[in-house]
Amino acid sequence: MIERARRYAVLGTGAVGGYYGALLQRSGFEVHFLARSDCEHIARYGLAVRSPMGDFVLPKVHVYSEAGTMPRCEVVLVTLKATHNHLLASMLPSVVAQGGTVVLMQNGLGGEAEIFPWAAGAQILGGLPFICVNKTAPGQIHHIDYGLVTLGAFGPDYAPQGQSPVLLQVAEDLQQAGIAVETAADLMLARWRKLVWNIPYNGLSVLLNARTDQLMENPATAALAEQLMAEVKAGARACGRDFPDAFIEKMLDHTRAMQPYRTSMKIDAEQGRPLEVETIYGHPLRIARRAGAQMPRVEMLYRQLQFVDARIRTVGKVATRA
Amino acid sequence: MIERARRYAVLGTGAVGGYYGALLQRSGFEVHFLARSDCEHIARYGLAVRSPMGDFVLPKVHVYSEAGTMPRCEVVLVTLKATHNHLLASMLPSVVAQGGTVVLMQNGLGGEAEIFPWAAGAQILGGLPFICVNKTAPGQIHHIDYGLVTLGAFGPDYAPQGQSPVLLQVAEDLQQAGIAVETAADLMLARWRKLVWNIPYNGLSVLLNARTDQLMENPATAALAEQLMAEVKAGARACGRDFPDAFIEKMLDHTRAMQPYRTSMKIDAEQGRPLEVETIYGHPLRIARRAGAQMPRVEMLYRQLQFVDARIRTVGKVATRA
Repeated sequence: MIERARRYAVLGTGAVGGYYGALLQRSGFEVHFLARSDCEHIARYGLAVRSPMGDFVLPKVHVYSEAGTMPRCEVVLVTLKATHNHLLASMLPSVVAQGGTVVLMQNGLGGEAEIFPWAAGAQILGGLPFICVNKTAPGQIHHIDYGLVTLGAFGPDYAPQGQSPVLLQVAEDLQQAGIAVETAADLMLARWRKLVWNIPYNGLSVLLNARTDQLMENPATAALAEQLMAEVKAGARACGRDFPDAFIEKMLDHTRAMQPYRTSMKIDAEQGRPLEVETIYGHPLRIARRAGAQMPRVEMLYRQLQFVDARIRTVGKVATRA
Repeated sequence: MIERARRYAVLGTGAVGGYYGALLQRSGFEVHFLARSDCEHIARYGLAVRSPMGDFVLPKVHVYSEAGTMPRCEVVLVTLKATHNHLLASMLPSVVAQGGTVVLMQNGLGGEAEIFPWAAGAQILGGLPFICVNKTAPGQIHHIDYGLVTLGAFGPDYAPQGQSPVLLQVAEDLQQAGIAVETAADLMLARWRKLVWNIPYNGLSVLLNARTDQLMENPATAALAEQLMAEVKAGARACGRDFPDAFIEKMLDHTRAMQPYRTSMKIDAEQGRPLEVETIYGHPLRIARRAGAQMPRVEMLYRQLQFVDARIRTVGKVATRA
């Protein structure tokens, strides 16, 4: 086993954190996992990954139920659900090593700005995982497909940071662990581009209890998805980020060609988990509004989802609409 | 019993048609009821009305399962669900007497223009029932509250017709039957005003599986309801119909003060019945667009409801969202 220089912390050993963290440890990095509910199980049995790239087991991992007992690490991967980001206020100051790096591995936009005050001077990177992976049981990770991480450096007001040394270093670590990495010189642009897909499909799939194929088969919702994408593009443009209309066409075609897919927000709703409403809708809406853009349809989806989310937080799991 | 001059046909003996038709017959009008599914039952047992205004039974009524077997009537009350309006193409020509009148007793906007070609030269009135009434079983009508009908005359392009003689005559008949009537010189204005309430609450109650009180308690959906109302006002204004902002305030306050209420569209969704999507959303949107107004949020609600409606028409009843 090669000894690597940087220690990694993984905050949140769900599907994404379990998978990427296990790959890092397998390639020789020292990795410390925070697993609040599964800690005892993982301490006893380790982590098991099933993957088309090869199954493997890590019988022994460093695992903690409290961030306060973890050692300081040079790189902290945040793989919590964005709905738990408020917990980072107390976690990050004790986990990040002096001069360290925090990688916020979540969808949406605005999370880096949210956690910035708690990062104790660490550099912040944003990570966008394009991956299909589930946690099937405590410590059991089932990787189904994809796995690319887009990494970009965060700076105040999301000013483009280019290819910073820290960015390249973390990218290299991940690549050495067998993870496909793409670096983005402009994190905000990367996040807006991913929102083009996430904003229409996550929200509509929850509200209409539908898979992506069902949304695209119905001309009314297919047209609505396209309108929502156009609003996201307008929001991005107000922030000085542009991409061609062809990108929207590509996302629509891609979704039409995809296997029937349940979005992550749909799965959260089915499981009675709070929805990532702020990071996917609330923050981007406020960022776009400050930049002068209105996104009326996206805002409407946000309000509808706030209602559903409030109900989930009150009564737990909500029955789905057939 | 007083003998009245005009014969009435009631096309659709559900809650609204059963109630108003029974009142007309009780006051001496000759009334002919079309009741496709309940015909046999009503022929045998008549109609029974339970109401805070007094219960009564009509043991003997003229009832038909096919419009083609009905006699021609001077006034035809259309109390079908708007989703069945296409049936009027074959019904009206054989039921309306020469020089007769058709009263379209439905919510929404655009229905009169839709049935105009089939009305065989009859005058068309629009009726907006403000009533809380249910059909509890075949021939069993339970009137709970309210009952006012707003009547207005229809003319090409919804040009205001003022107080036409036919309008006043039908209004007088209804009043003689004990029905509260308000005449509207401008049918389109009356319909736009009623849409101020129907557009937000019908659609959101279906999508979010919510009663009116739940929609108003959540600040996100309360704000969305107000935005939808403002768009309806903009649509009306583009059509040359205006009402003060205070009217929107009044509707919001009224809804906050109301008893928890399930909208008619919510009940339709629960029962697996097609939704009145075109008359409440599709027609008004197209009328407003022709007049130059965009209503992006109303259009989005329309598209979402088209998806739900298509699912209802495919799979029947859809489970509700808790």
